[in-house]
Amino acid sequence: MKQDYVPQIPYGTRDFLPREAGRKRVVEAGLAQLFGNWGYDEVVTPTFEYLETLMVGATNDVEQHMFKFLDKNNRILALRPDMTTPIARTAATRMREAGVPLRLFYLTNVFRYELAQAGRQCEFYQAGVELLGAPGPAADAEIIALAVASMQEAGLTNFQVSLGQVDFINGIMAESELNPAQRQQVKAAIVRRDLVGLGEILSASGLSADMQKFLKSIPVLHGRQEVFEQAYKMAPNEVSRAALDNLADIFRLLTSYGVQEHVNFDLGLIRDFDYYTGMVFEGYTPGLGFPICGGGRYDKMLAAFGSDSPATGFALGIERVLLALERQGLSTPPADKDCYVAWQGNSLPEAIATANKLRAEGWRVELALEAESREAAEINTRQRCCTKLHYIGG
Amino acid sequence: MKQDYVPQIPYGTRDFLPREAGRKRVVEAGLAQLFGNWGYDEVVTPTFEYLETLMVGATNDVEQHMFKFLDKNNRILALRPDMTTPIARTAATRMREAGVPLRLFYLTNVFRYELAQAGRQCEFYQAGVELLGAPGPAADAEIIALAVASMQEAGLTNFQVSLGQVDFINGIMAESELNPAQRQQVKAAIVRRDLVGLGEILSASGLSADMQKFLKSIPVLHGRQEVFEQAYKMAPNEVSRAALDNLADIFRLLTSYGVQEHVNFDLGLIRDFDYYTGMVFEGYTPGLGFPICGGGRYDKMLAAFGSDSPATGFALGIERVLLALERQGLSTPPADKDCYVAWQGNSLPEAIATANKLRAEGWRVELALEAESREAAEINTRQRCCTKLHYIGG
Repeated sequence: MKQDYVPQIPYGTRDFLPREAGRKRVVEAGLAQLFGNWGYDEVVTPTFEYLETLMVGATNDVEQHMFKFLDKNNRILALRPDMTTPIARTAATRMREAGVPLRLFYLTNVFRYELAQAGRQCEFYQAGVELLGAPGPAADAEIIALAVASMQEAGLTNFQVSLGQVDFINGIMAESELNPAQRQQVKAAIVRRDLVGLGEILSASGLSADMQKFLKSIPVLHGRQEVFEQAYKMAPNEVSRAALDNLADIFRLLTSYGVQEHVNFDLGLIRDFDYYTGMVFEGYTPGLGFPICGGGRYDKMLAAFGSDSPATGFALGIERVLLALERQGLSTPPADKDCYVAWQGNSLPEAIATANKLRAEGWRVELALEAESREAAEINTRQRCCTKLHYIGG
Repeated sequence: MKQDYVPQIPYGTRDFLPREAGRKRVVEAGLAQLFGNWGYDEVVTPTFEYLETLMVGATNDVEQHMFKFLDKNNRILALRPDMTTPIARTAATRMREAGVPLRLFYLTNVFRYELAQAGRQCEFYQAGVELLGAPGPAADAEIIALAVASMQEAGLTNFQVSLGQVDFINGIMAESELNPAQRQQVKAAIVRRDLVGLGEILSASGLSADMQKFLKSIPVLHGRQEVFEQAYKMAPNEVSRAALDNLADIFRLLTSYGVQEHVNFDLGLIRDFDYYTGMVFEGYTPGLGFPICGGGRYDKMLAAFGSDSPATGFALGIERVLLALERQGLSTPPADKDCYVAWQGNSLPEAIATANKLRAEGWRVELALEAESREAAEINTRQRCCTKLHYIGG
């Protein structure tokens, strides 16, 4: 053993000390219960997988941010950067016999090597659901409504969901005469909300001034119902119009769920994973400069695992929820313990029997491990956050 | 995306499909509640740490079984092989201001690259507690009694705890004239319960026949009270006798906890981590050829992190608990969902409102995503494990 070694933890990782770990457990337990109430079953997959598995549906950009290592046969393993791909793998390969639609949830950690930002570390926790085998707007509406219910369950009151559809932009791109590399650049600038960069890419693109103006207007198609009418006028072809029809169908069902007040449209929304094929959404809460949850439809991924099936889902960032609750003053302090059992002289056996009895009745009991005076016990009762003192042998 | 790729998962890893994931969640939630009722607070630490941190208290043998990789600065990271070292690091460096004794628990996964055996994979889940800052037998008894309570909480009825003390063997070793390398070999053979190997090492050791016979008798010092008297006669010095006195004190307190029927003595018990300094124990259940839980006292580890403090604790293997429950026919099947809400025609909005209402009342409700006939809905109700059908628009 090394002496006097002062240890650090790796960049982008953190400890959850009792106060925060307790909050995390309460939020996660509530979400597990909620997902169960909506008919979702939990799945747990390995923390690391073969890189080639995780690359299904991931962009090269995501690969650069994976933690990679070798197994004893020199095959490349990586810590999972999200749970959508592992769940799709499981569902496609191990659950073919289960009836569709298949509703699955997870509550676990994922890993991305990146510059740590507020609310996102290199290791972070996600709660999420995947709804597999259901192609229609009813499935997408269920996912968005469940995302809203999840934020409410976690204790958030003030939040908005921004809703987009990747085919709206795909339809416009198809008309734009941009080559595939340029399309990727334009999309990347829209993902980053980088209007200056977008302008530069378009200036160099050789597109007509009208088309440039048109593409630059996509990121500002953000708001309520009125955005829709504007977008219908802009939609250059059937692909874009079908995307808007799809969003209209989903939105109608969201009013049945009673969550329409939480939803607005953002037709420039493109998410950072490349696998989305339909509606996409992100949830925001005031005072956090990044989404608290996000998801969408990804109908092609399961085919890559040999089981062609539509799919939709979302994930919620647990640390981001905890941060939002704290910033909004909604964090509940951890509950005190019920009872401190202290003793003097030879009364430890009696104190143990008392603690046993109280615990069997469901009380949270801390037992003194050494004899102490009543005065010391009273101080300890307060310091150890116990509501009551049970003093034995006095 | 690759087409028709049939994915595998890495050697020694597994998926928990819904049935088993549900059982895992129930067992873990029960243990978190139990640990809380005994005054323990949860801590969550990073999945990987710097190798040098994890090597505090680990033997070289453990290092060979770690999954290692490099960070962007070429420092060696490793997936944690257990939680005792990370908790000691956290406690020693981040919780110095907290009063002692400090009671912490964890529920998480750990990683060891090894030949997968029944009940142990390369990634597996542990529940455990650490009791820091308390040197006496009252702390050790609390830990053993809590281990017993944990196995009961998990649903096990038939199990035994084997209790040893590393100083009993250390005292004998000190008299044996074995050199340090030989002592390690002898200990390793005892850990493996390899009596043939032990005999061979001793034959080659040059020790007297009496001493060889004496050392060979250690692994069979296993049983109830009577083993104790035998061991007292064998104890060659104060170190070994003090170890037995310590076990006697602990055992007396275990009778106060009412768990003595679950406890026997195994004076040849040495555990696979090198950091133990006092009592050690393992829990066994019939039909599993490996311990279901284990722990002990480790008074030197926190000093290595700059905060000298005694410590004791244990960990329980979640997969092993699930396997034992299954083998003993004690697994409870997952509960059915309460209600399947199906609909026909244009009744989806009404069906959504009904599902909303039932979920708000706490029911577990699965909603049909397409119109279906009453006959199809009745079949789906059964196939999707729902107790009741709520059919709308019929």
